[in-house]
Amino acid sequence: MPVPLSPDIRARIAEAVDHAFDQQIETTRRFSAIPSTRGAEGPCQDMMADLLRARGYEVDDWPIRMEDLQGLPDLGIIEHDFSRARSVVGTLRPARETGRSLILQGHCDVVPAGPLDMWRSPPFQPEVRDGWLYGRGAGDMKAGTIAALYAMDAIRAAGLSLKGRVHFQSVIEEESTGVGALSTLQRGYRADAALLPEPTSRRFTNVCVGVLWFRLRVRGEPAHVAWASQGFNAIKAAYRLIHALEGLEAAWNARAKADPHYGSMTNPVNYSPGIIQGGEWASSVPAWCDVDCRIAVLPGWDVEDCKREIEACVAEAAAGDPNLATNPPRVVWSGFHSHGYVLKGGDVARAILAEAHAVVGGAPLEDRYGTGLNDARFYNRYFGIPAFCYGPHAENVHGFNERVELQSIRDSTKAIAAFIAAWCGAEPA
Amino acid sequence: MPVPLSPDIRARIAEAVDHAFDQQIETTRRFSAIPSTRGAEGPCQDMMADLLRARGYEVDDWPIRMEDLQGLPDLGIIEHDFSRARSVVGTLRPARETGRSLILQGHCDVVPAGPLDMWRSPPFQPEVRDGWLYGRGAGDMKAGTIAALYAMDAIRAAGLSLKGRVHFQSVIEEESTGVGALSTLQRGYRADAALLPEPTSRRFTNVCVGVLWFRLRVRGEPAHVAWASQGFNAIKAAYRLIHALEGLEAAWNARAKADPHYGSMTNPVNYSPGIIQGGEWASSVPAWCDVDCRIAVLPGWDVEDCKREIEACVAEAAAGDPNLATNPPRVVWSGFHSHGYVLKGGDVARAILAEAHAVVGGAPLEDRYGTGLNDARFYNRYFGIPAFCYGPHAENVHGFNERVELQSIRDSTKAIAAFIAAWCGAEPA
Repeated sequence: MPVPLSPDIRARIAEAVDHAFDQQIETTRRFSAIPSTRGAEGPCQDMMADLLRARGYEVDDWPIRMEDLQGLPDLGIIEHDFSRARSVVGTLRPARETGRSLILQGHCDVVPAGPLDMWRSPPFQPEVRDGWLYGRGAGDMKAGTIAALYAMDAIRAAGLSLKGRVHFQSVIEEESTGVGALSTLQRGYRADAALLPEPTSRRFTNVCVGVLWFRLRVRGEPAHVAWASQGFNAIKAAYRLIHALEGLEAAWNARAKADPHYGSMTNPVNYSPGIIQGGEWASSVPAWCDVDCRIAVLPGWDVEDCKREIEACVAEAAAGDPNLATNPPRVVWSGFHSHGYVLKGGDVARAILAEAHAVVGGAPLEDRYGTGLNDARFYNRYFGIPAFCYGPHAENVHGFNERVELQSIRDSTKAIAAFIAAWCGAEPA
Repeated sequence: MPVPLSPDIRARIAEAVDHAFDQQIETTRRFSAIPSTRGAEGPCQDMMADLLRARGYEVDDWPIRMEDLQGLPDLGIIEHDFSRARSVVGTLRPARETGRSLILQGHCDVVPAGPLDMWRSPPFQPEVRDGWLYGRGAGDMKAGTIAALYAMDAIRAAGLSLKGRVHFQSVIEEESTGVGALSTLQRGYRADAALLPEPTSRRFTNVCVGVLWFRLRVRGEPAHVAWASQGFNAIKAAYRLIHALEGLEAAWNARAKADPHYGSMTNPVNYSPGIIQGGEWASSVPAWCDVDCRIAVLPGWDVEDCKREIEACVAEAAAGDPNLATNPPRVVWSGFHSHGYVLKGGDVARAILAEAHAVVGGAPLEDRYGTGLNDARFYNRYFGIPAFCYGPHAENVHGFNERVELQSIRDSTKAIAAFIAAWCGAEPA
């Protein structure tokens, strides 16, 4: 069981975090200024590789080839140009490994900003206001990644060397398929635990939903709108399916009442039509409509069974409509394809983190059952590596005016540093 | 009242049409092969100007400037790049005008083709199969425009000269705003009648609905879908408005029961959401959704009153939803802005056309009350020029596998030629 850090070492680490904190926020700001939406993560990966090299990490920076990942579990579906996809792993290895090893992992991909006019300040010109850093991706999860990097720096600045090796991983595709995390596992990186500094408001995320992405493809019979009744309006028809899936969401939330973790939560299963596109002319009855949807599945639910249920729900709704029955809509699986996850074998890590969490005072470490998924699932569920999330407090993640609280960045950096030192073991350099 | 053409002249004209018919179809095919969707009509206008010049018409080819059209009635709203917009008018003027003058007008803009995989043959590689010419725009209305051109040719080939001048007009924007037709009127072109060879299945369109285009703009509060209930799904909210407007459509169709022309027609007022776009990420609750809609208004209905009703309908639906009430949707007027139309002063023209229509045998000329609008309204309603549509038989206009029947092209070319000769008066050249 954990060997607590001495109060002296704790204090030296915390001091080192405070000392470099302005620089840390500046690095976070620069990292968040890169508009690393899907397909455009390259400059973030370059910056991260540079940061790691400058600190003496051994850097592995490789292109992700989907053919290498075939057959791996919960592999998401890639539909876009993937030719520039890369993973970056920086490794810091003691001369002689006697401590536990650790993976620190952050994703650098961010979700689209949406209409700019809905942001108070431009999403990729991050700025600090009233104790918060604002910007797309600042919260989810660039502040956390940079916090982990500076946590490692603080240990060194405190005059300590780690006894176990650390793989610092910067990945892509966390927001759509998880293939970035999967690629590091396919590449062979393993450790005794993995910490993902997602914005958990300094809680311990050990349980997490899975997610499915799918596209409803409605195709109809077009016509001039002057004889609209002769045509089949695919936009209107799509809403029938959107609505039917709300029924499935309700059924799954009813089923969730029996879940050991989510049973007491209101609507842990969230379904949302997130993107819609249909038609191309106001005076033509639209013959097509595509709706991209997301739905969660709880731990223990089988993804293949859930897919079957979704398809049956859509088919049943279509059967109830003469036009849809004649032109059956398709369900296309289009991204996340993930089971839910409950941490196994993470007791020691949790105990050490609880201790580290106390470094900055406040309430004891709380567990958090995630209703959005994260990359931890791959490490633990399929590769036996205890993996969990712990990081700063962010708001409006995936929304407008996304922001992350500076004090929570400072506190979680100190806690993560204390965790790393205790987990891997630290000795005077 | 009309002086019928002599049987001999009729026969000579019909013979000339038959003689050039293969060439006419080849010209129609070439004209239809140009993908002249909105903003891309330039090459069609070039081709038409070339065809007119080669035939000795005096050609006026000018850029349309929206500032010249301000204040003109039923002026549509232009939202796209309009810098390459042109009108082409070819005039054939007798040395001494003693007959009635005539405008022949066709629009060369076509609606988008939609997904190519839904076409049996590529929409802009027109081809003849089983007596039909297939292609986007072949029916609506390139076959008609070329029919009018070859009708003029046939009169000349029959050894006749017209006694009245003819303005042959090729316009754009018929499918979205009508500013092309309006520009020819602003330019000063006038005549004693206007024939628009739209695909009317050889019927006489003398009554027509007006049309309004508008965009529903829904803006909400985004969120990560993991906490979907915290966000406001603009896609779902848009449906509430789409549905409410179906109620307005039903109310207007009920009101239409009292209309002298449309009273016995089932649902002459067609409303359709034709384009939808919303959100950009499946795992973000979409914060915006735009829906482009079209609705018809009957002759005699005031457009401003109708707009007020649409706005009230949307506002009422929004008020019934807590999220929409907080973030009121907007109605943006976005294209057609047109009153309906009943032909006035067209009795002589109709009588002459009825006579000409009989040239090729078959049933007597029928009236047609249009449920989709056309450009005729501008000429008659605001400039006192009797204007009507008469042209070939087309199917799947605005749909996939749009097609126009070759026999109907031949017949309407003969009828249009006979009409022109009788209307303007013809004498041996």
